[in-house]
Amino acid sequence: MRLFLLPKEFNGTDTITLTGKNFNYIVKVLRLKENASLTGRDAAGNAWNLTILHIGKASVTLSAVRDAFAKERTDALPENRPRHNIILYQCLPKGRKMDEIVKRGTEIGVCAIVPVKSGNCIANLEENRAESRSERYEALIKEAVEQSGSLVPTRIGNLIDIKDVSSDFKKRSEAFGEPAIGLILHQCSLKEDQRDLVSVLKGFKGTVGVLVGPEGGFTDSECSLLMQEGFKPVLLRTNILRCETAAIYALSAVQALIETSEDN
Amino acid sequence: MRLFLLPKEFNGTDTITLTGKNFNYIVKVLRLKENASLTGRDAAGNAWNLTILHIGKASVTLSAVRDAFAKERTDALPENRPRHNIILYQCLPKGRKMDEIVKRGTEIGVCAIVPVKSGNCIANLEENRAESRSERYEALIKEAVEQSGSLVPTRIGNLIDIKDVSSDFKKRSEAFGEPAIGLILHQCSLKEDQRDLVSVLKGFKGTVGVLVGPEGGFTDSECSLLMQEGFKPVLLRTNILRCETAAIYALSAVQALIETSEDN
Repeated sequence: MRLFLLPKEFNGTDTITLTGKNFNYIVKVLRLKENASLTGRDAAGNAWNLTILHIGKASVTLSAVRDAFAKERTDALPENRPRHNIILYQCLPKGRKMDEIVKRGTEIGVCAIVPVKSGNCIANLEENRAESRSERYEALIKEAVEQSGSLVPTRIGNLIDIKDVSSDFKKRSEAFGEPAIGLILHQCSLKEDQRDLVSVLKGFKGTVGVLVGPEGGFTDSECSLLMQEGFKPVLLRTNILRCETAAIYALSAVQALIETSEDN
Repeated sequence: MRLFLLPKEFNGTDTITLTGKNFNYIVKVLRLKENASLTGRDAAGNAWNLTILHIGKASVTLSAVRDAFAKERTDALPENRPRHNIILYQCLPKGRKMDEIVKRGTEIGVCAIVPVKSGNCIANLEENRAESRSERYEALIKEAVEQSGSLVPTRIGNLIDIKDVSSDFKKRSEAFGEPAIGLILHQCSLKEDQRDLVSVLKGFKGTVGVLVGPEGGFTDSECSLLMQEGFKPVLLRTNILRCETAAIYALSAVQALIETSEDN
């Protein structure tokens, strides 16, 4: 199923005319013809039934009718959607690895992805790249939502320093009004007790913040700081994973654990 | 850390001369020079300390000394390796999605990946492609082991029909001498009780078989058959995932659940 993300400007009018990338996507990529229908979602997460009225040379006009889609979906598979919030704090890895993480995280239904700068980051973090980076992530999220039909409106955060992760998580998680727990994925042995995911999340239902390191992991002082601020260090009992795999692994396991119907 | 997979012919001699792809990998890709060292693993899973003695035009000769590497690793992170076996039965998806699954599955430390042909498979399964497919998977596994330093020797199985999954799993899992459970990932509502992963794996420690469908999922009769044969249907409480993400999601969550130190 494909889902089309309506532009932010869309304010519920009966028809909408799209140009540029959106025109391209509908006419060139999806190759839809006049009278074809597709499901849209607006910035607030509402579902719309869209029908193509007219295709011009560089613009496409659609009718928009509020759709019971989301409701139907919810009725059909009442428990088959993530009910709790996951926020991914990802220290920027090298090259295009972050793209992969943004795509899969969106697909899994993470509610926010916040890029983090930490001591061992070797990615190019120049300020003048911030805007293009952020634009690329937005585009990747849009594509992943459209491909997967995710009903979670995944947001991308601005790049923050690792010392601000804890306050950022506090602010974001408080908005959800659920219990919240922050996890730091640290594959080195600490002096302190370091538990596995199942053990740390036993009986927990609520918002989870997952902090994943860059290729070189975290420094001892970064770990100590986060732990002082209440983050729980987690050791994954697995092979040595590449950092993009580690993020997906953690998000998958965390979601499976907090979405269970068991009291575990 | 990089790990070099020694050719199957290697039988523990003091020196080994490599040509072709192996020569290329060491000299052209890793760009190692004479006297450089790297860690190797033989077909039986033993670790070897390799040192480059001589680089020729099309061959490289190395000395090979049995290494305490695996032991050291185990001592350093005694519990930080998968202890239980996971076997992935993956219905062949379209195009190159299987490549991604093979790579990540190897990284996570799945012990076997078995391609499966099922009713909704739309991949090209022509017999004459079987050999090149199998060769490609072997190469991907080799690359993923070398990149991730996985200590699990992941095997690729021959393509089997979905009706033979149950007997194949019985045979493979019996060899491990642990309790075994087969799971079928089915994202449609069944009449029967369909539980989530945490619930199905509660208290379970042993070998897990994970059967993941192709793009179109399983047919009702495939599901019924597998369930009659003891496979448990599992519903992931997540978004609609692409099939390659579904496989990684399930493997990650399953491994996190069976590797916990909790009794859960």
